[in-house]
Amino acid sequence: MQNLEQQLDFILELDRLKAVYRQVMVKSDNNRRENSAEHSWHIAMMAQMLHVYAAEPVNVARVTTMLLIHDIVEIDAGDTFAFAAQAELDAQEAKELDAANRIFGLLPLEQYQEMLSLWTEFEAAETNDAKFAKAMDRVLPLLQNMKNDGGSWVKHNVSKSDVIARNNLLDGLAPKLWTYVAAQIELAVGKGWLRND
Amino acid sequence: MQNLEQQLDFILELDRLKAVYRQVMVKSDNNRRENSAEHSWHIAMMAQMLHVYAAEPVNVARVTTMLLIHDIVEIDAGDTFAFAAQAELDAQEAKELDAANRIFGLLPLEQYQEMLSLWTEFEAAETNDAKFAKAMDRVLPLLQNMKNDGGSWVKHNVSKSDVIARNNLLDGLAPKLWTYVAAQIELAVGKGWLRND
Ligand SMILES: [Ca+2]
Repeated sequence: MQNLEQQLDFILELDRLKAVYRQVMVKSDNNRRENSAEHSWHIAMMAQMLHVYAAEPVNVARVTTMLLIHDIVEIDAGDTFAFAAQAELDAQEAKELDAANRIFGLLPLEQYQEMLSLWTEFEAAETNDAKFAKAMDRVLPLLQNMKNDGGSWVKHNVSKSDVIARNNLLDGLAPKLWTYVAAQIELAVGKGWLRND
Repeated sequence: MQNLEQQLDFILELDRLKAVYRQVMVKSDNNRRENSAEHSWHIAMMAQMLHVYAAEPVNVARVTTMLLIHDIVEIDAGDTFAFAAQAELDAQEAKELDAANRIFGLLPLEQYQEMLSLWTEFEAAETNDAKFAKAMDRVLPLLQNMKNDGGSWVKHNVSKSDVIARNNLLDGLAPKLWTYVAAQIELAVGKGWLRND
């Protein structure tokens, strides 16, 4: 039963991701902050619907698993705002690697290695699957903010160039999505939801 | 852009599942009630770890998608407590079918059909994939309640036979998991968390 006990420890540890709150607000629930568990579900669903726009086909099952696990490290490392200062983002990286080793390390060796390798691939964003997964993680907050009068952008005075830099990995990867997103960014500037820099 | 707009409408509609609250409590977050979006994420992760116990191999990617979408109907139909009266559970069924048609119906035709068919398969619980997915949905609350002094069982005075009836589809499907779960149920009775009927 040793493997099963390890797997159940891991599964129960995941409960804690429901207590990690992000900057994005949930419009459907009185604008409370979104937690990383429900966010992970939402982008996994998004990938299942939008993978058809990938210029080079992606492996949806791998992309889905990447998205389901990508934020688990936040259980230890917490969430860092996407538009935080670079020094803060760098410090976060080391914390997340420790977290990945501790939390995936709860699993039996083979699953630990599999999860760690998938998470590392996502972080590196070099393979097509990882790039597409990362794009999903980045585009959803944009859609949410667009539906919410600018949402967390307005609250944190985010600029147009920040959002472009964060989303332009879609260019080439899924051109039709990038065209849509680029137009939304212009719209947001027009509405005053993004600072025009 | 018609397809993309439909897909984005669907994706944004999903936000509302974060406002559907279940009876299960999130121990890691001050025992607030769990919402169906984060629950869906959690059982999808659980399936990814525990599919290795399925007596006949399951298609993990299909099981994962089933679990990610299985509660979406609750956006319209709400959550019904697993141990509600049978009449209430029956009435829920019709509401959920309408909900599936409306919500998956936001998608382009092909994806609508794909999602509806997967959801219907899950509900029918006849295929091996659907049975395994359903078992995951049922076992996780048991694990959560065991870690939480009986949690929602105690609050609603749930009986041992209710929990056995709800989980014994594991018997045969994943014998090792069923052995574990059956022992946990006895433990819960011993602790007074389940009514011994
Ligand atoms: Ca459920």
